[in-house]
Amino acid sequence: MSLPVLELVDTVHSGNGWKVRLLCGYLGRSVRRRSLSIVDGDLETEDFRRINPWGQVPVLRTAEGRWLAESGAILWYLAQGTAFLPAERLAQAQLVQWLSFEQTQHMVNLAQPRLWVHLRQTMQPDDPRVLAWRHHGEQALAHMERHLQSNRFFVGDGPSIADVALFPYTCMAAQGGYELQPYPQVRGWLARMQALPGYVPLL
Amino acid sequence: MSLPVLELVDTVHSGNGWKVRLLCGYLGRSVRRRSLSIVDGDLETEDFRRINPWGQVPVLRTAEGRWLAESGAILWYLAQGTAFLPAERLAQAQLVQWLSFEQTQHMVNLAQPRLWVHLRQTMQPDDPRVLAWRHHGEQALAHMERHLQSNRFFVGDGPSIADVALFPYTCMAAQGGYELQPYPQVRGWLARMQALPGYVPLL
Repeated sequence: MSLPVLELVDTVHSGNGWKVRLLCGYLGRSVRRRSLSIVDGDLETEDFRRINPWGQVPVLRTAEGRWLAESGAILWYLAQGTAFLPAERLAQAQLVQWLSFEQTQHMVNLAQPRLWVHLRQTMQPDDPRVLAWRHHGEQALAHMERHLQSNRFFVGDGPSIADVALFPYTCMAAQGGYELQPYPQVRGWLARMQALPGYVPLL
Repeated sequence: MSLPVLELVDTVHSGNGWKVRLLCGYLGRSVRRRSLSIVDGDLETEDFRRINPWGQVPVLRTAEGRWLAESGAILWYLAQGTAFLPAERLAQAQLVQWLSFEQTQHMVNLAQPRLWVHLRQTMQPDDPRVLAWRHHGEQALAHMERHLQSNRFFVGDGPSIADVALFPYTCMAAQGGYELQPYPQVRGWLARMQALPGYVPLL
């Protein structure tokens, strides 16, 4: 029995949307993608607010016909029953731990300078807000580097949704003004993720 | 066979630590609690950094002898196999969705004014940072209110770790200068959570 083709709503440059497409690539699973434009105000429309009252992408329409928001939740939904979501109790809790780290300590600090300096170009690289993000973002990268000194992936022995969640904004860190030279373990892990069968680039 | 008594490291006033003790209360499960003091610098010591390099509480020592950080991850660990963590695929993804919402949109905006204005008293209630947190915190409360207009709990028909995660900082919202009067559904849900068998207060 073939799996239903699910609908993914994202934006072209969304790193959070990339997570979902990346996982689908690794799993060999198709999604029908609909890319909205922030600049054109697509996320502010009544239609989109019905899909996600919170107004963020990505959003996935599940097999149950429900719209699911938050990239981590979508990864969890899609990966269940696969090796990307181990069933063991401690491993599952560690997945939640890294998903939380990614959202609260990692993504915000790597994504915001990329958005405002690189994509929208409305902030200067030395804006105090950019410097604060960079300060915390370096701490997040150092935390990842430390973990990868004794682990090939973030949870267990193989790639999981923790790796998929952490990949996009780490991979695009240079667009936020970050230099990955001081993080050799992180660079090795990025290369391992890119070498996995089914890898899909952002664009 | 009785379950092993796990060790929880938190601080006395930590809302994130309260989530864990609240869940243990509902599950009728004991933990051995060790409360550190931020003011005394307990979170900056080498000993604590060995437990959690990221330097945050709560941290749980699991039955496998591993230290687990991030409140959502600890809830996930403790609730597996109980009604507080439904096994269904969509329900699990919705749990991750609300845990992520709580960490990124809710907790930070409700906890920060409480910490700096109420507990440490180093910011004035009209500080621009406090006003920005309050602005986003009201949006988070309105989002919860909307969901609770047609749901008694956040995922499924009964209480889950999504409710446990959202409870503490909502319950303490007044300490951050919030007024819950405009959110009758939220107030009703708080009362339902407090009426559940095993409820434990912060102090």
